[in-house]
Amino acid sequence: MGKVIVLLSGGLDSTTCLALAKRAGHDVYALSFDYGQRHMAELKAASRIAKAMGASAHQIIKISISDFGGSALTDMSIGVPDYAGNKKIPVTYVPARNTIFLSMALAWAEVLDAEAIYIGVNTVDYSGYPDCRPEYLRAFQTMANLATKRGVEGSHISIRAPLLDLGKAQTIQLGVASGVDYSLTVSCYQATDDGLACGRCDSCYLRKKGFSEAGIADPTLYQ
Amino acid sequence: MGKVIVLLSGGLDSTTCLALAKRAGHDVYALSFDYGQRHMAELKAASRIAKAMGASAHQIIKISISDFGGSALTDMSIGVPDYAGNKKIPVTYVPARNTIFLSMALAWAEVLDAEAIYIGVNTVDYSGYPDCRPEYLRAFQTMANLATKRGVEGSHISIRAPLLDLGKAQTIQLGVASGVDYSLTVSCYQATDDGLACGRCDSCYLRKKGFSEAGIADPTLYQ
Repeated sequence: MGKVIVLLSGGLDSTTCLALAKRAGHDVYALSFDYGQRHMAELKAASRIAKAMGASAHQIIKISISDFGGSALTDMSIGVPDYAGNKKIPVTYVPARNTIFLSMALAWAEVLDAEAIYIGVNTVDYSGYPDCRPEYLRAFQTMANLATKRGVEGSHISIRAPLLDLGKAQTIQLGVASGVDYSLTVSCYQATDDGLACGRCDSCYLRKKGFSEAGIADPTLYQ
Repeated sequence: MGKVIVLLSGGLDSTTCLALAKRAGHDVYALSFDYGQRHMAELKAASRIAKAMGASAHQIIKISISDFGGSALTDMSIGVPDYAGNKKIPVTYVPARNTIFLSMALAWAEVLDAEAIYIGVNTVDYSGYPDCRPEYLRAFQTMANLATKRGVEGSHISIRAPLLDLGKAQTIQLGVASGVDYSLTVSCYQATDDGLACGRCDSCYLRKKGFSEAGIADPTLYQ
């Protein structure tokens, strides 16, 4: 099995992806972004996870999309709302975030000659972000095949979203079975620098519900 | 006419795009990238062009894709070749560059509520880069429509490549007719800090040929 890139936020889903890629025998290159997110604790988590789980390399790329503003996750003047459970795209949506992350991963994958990019999106227990949907991922794959030298040469870089159809509980069960220590992960949108979670935002709500439904003790440290 | 983003490298094509967007009455937001390119003179050029041509704002976003390596434009250990004129993708290809640039522009366009992104690619006098082709741009548009909140709401951000089918000479004629002062622009892949061109790389070759075929005096300062 060859090299793969894993987009690693330091949260529950991306860490599960890393475990799945390792279990499949891949040589894992973890990629994280410092994009001015308010929850910098997740980057610390990403570093300790990449190390603990045997990634061959871990790059943290700084991109100043927070200069654009427009999201509660990067603009400190917009508050992170509590979980609301409606169908609207929430203000925590970061414009074009997954497109930027996947594009950067595509560049690194081409340089490394990696066969795939793992991304931990899912459309079951999620916040309704457009760039988590299967039709989006298919369109990104088509674009990526045309964008790169690798694509022109017929050797495509595959976009893999192994959690796409899984609920949070199933993801947790799969991760635990694959040896993930979820106490290393941070999901909260407004975690303290020490990684303590608020327990109220979308991300905390979905995580908490996931552990509860999976029947697995929640290792999250709350404020 | 509303707001548009213009991807502005500081070279001939992107500057012509800016002129076309202004001529169409748009409010222009210029976007440049400091991606570790060896030809930093083009960023200085971008700044003076944005100012001279009346852009409403100019952002230079720093992204460390040079950490990935793999291109003569970002890796100082790979030399920039002279123009060769064959059909191979040259080593100046930067993996996924236009995808990264368009993705960042997509984010800013969404925050600004801009109607379009201008990109100065063309497939006539070009270096054979895969991410300059019309099929690539169409695939990016499809992906972008699915990626964003704007797309979900049915208000697409249009990707415009007005130079796509123009040869360099036609682009120059169009630019001159639109008031572009090409002495402000820098195209050379290995320009000196003062913007003096090498006269030998792909980019210099195509530019020089363009002025010659257009019958317009070449304002480029060569080393």
